Amino acid sequence: MRVLGVDPGLTRCGVGVVDSLRGRRAALVAAGVVRTDPDTSVDLRLLGIAQGLDQWLDEYVPDVVAVERVFAQHNAGTVMGTAQAAGLAMVAAARRGIPVALHTPSEVKAAVTGSGSAGKEQVQRMVQNILTLAAPPKPADAADALALAITHLWRPAGALQGGERGGGLTPAQKAWAAAEHAAKRR
Amino acid sequence: MRVLGVDPGLTRCGVGVVDSLRGRRAALVAAGVVRTDPDTSVDLRLLGIAQGLDQWLDEYVPDVVAVERVFAQHNAGTVMGTAQAAGLAMVAAARRGIPVALHTPSEVKAAVTGSGSAGKEQVQRMVQNILTLAAPPKPADAADALALAITHLWRPAGALQGGERGGGLTPAQKAWAAAEHAAKRR
Repeated sequence: MRVLGVDPGLTRCGVGVVDSLRGRRAALVAAGVVRTDPDTSVDLRLLGIAQGLDQWLDEYVPDVVAVERVFAQHNAGTVMGTAQAAGLAMVAAARRGIPVALHTPSEVKAAVTGSGSAGKEQVQRMVQNILTLAAPPKPADAADALALAITHLWRPAGALQGGERGGGLTPAQKAWAAAEHAAKRR
Repeated sequence: MRVLGVDPGLTRCGVGVVDSLRGRRAALVAAGVVRTDPDTSVDLRLLGIAQGLDQWLDEYVPDVVAVERVFAQHNAGTVMGTAQAAGLAMVAAARRGIPVALHTPSEVKAAVTGSGSAGKEQVQRMVQNILTLAAPPKPADAADALALAITHLWRPAGALQGGERGGGLTPAQKAWAAAEHAAKRR
């Protein structure tokens, strides 16, 4: 399975593509950032994000698009642009009939580090380890997008199928399930 | 000049098209609402909004698209969907090379009623009067979209051209300019 992760943002929108391998391993396919010029008008910046995401989807043809779930409470100064970039990613996927999954930042941290409160650097180091890279992926937005994609690959089976939880989960997957459960109760 | 106004929303996205006439009059071209099913997933709902707006733009070919400016502080429960619908409207216009204008709710109230703190019903009655309709446009989202379009038609000359303010403005236009000025200082 190929997952394209999107760390939404108006100035820098991180994109990361990961393929699942046997034995719960994952391989880096590509990672990067769609950037827009803060001095340009918002409509043209959003168009730049939409066109950039279209290119990534056309080039890498993922099976799923995983987008960070944006909450109204966070970062009042940038939350509008972040929400709008996330919306564009969802529509770009939906136009192509590609399923969309939303994951919270806590879920991502729990999935890749085992702790829902891990720091950014810890997430980047784990992305490096999981994908067996020589160095942490740069910039941070690309690393976060890869972490989102990995989170989706490693989601607990019950998360999609509604089946029983807890059988054969890794510690990270159990932490992911707990974070997901906590998010649903908000 | 033809303006298409968008009152963004995820469940109901108001759309209104207005043509300018001589002597600061305006004529209704069309108004309606793009609706999405709250029981559907967010990505498919946003796709529905995007496709609905595409149809309106293709059918009515406006010179300008006027979108309500969404603020992070307002309506925490729905602000994400509202911001995302606004973003889709901006991108739909930008893809066609149509200029986008953003107007705050206060600007809209001031433009059509002369008061930045007017109520919703007062705005609807004024939209009815301005467009010489037999009844207030329904539903409210369509009326708000028409008010946005009228606001853009009646914006002070200085708002776009950066020229001097105050010469020959109507009371409503002066209130609009004051509301715009207040919004810029936020």
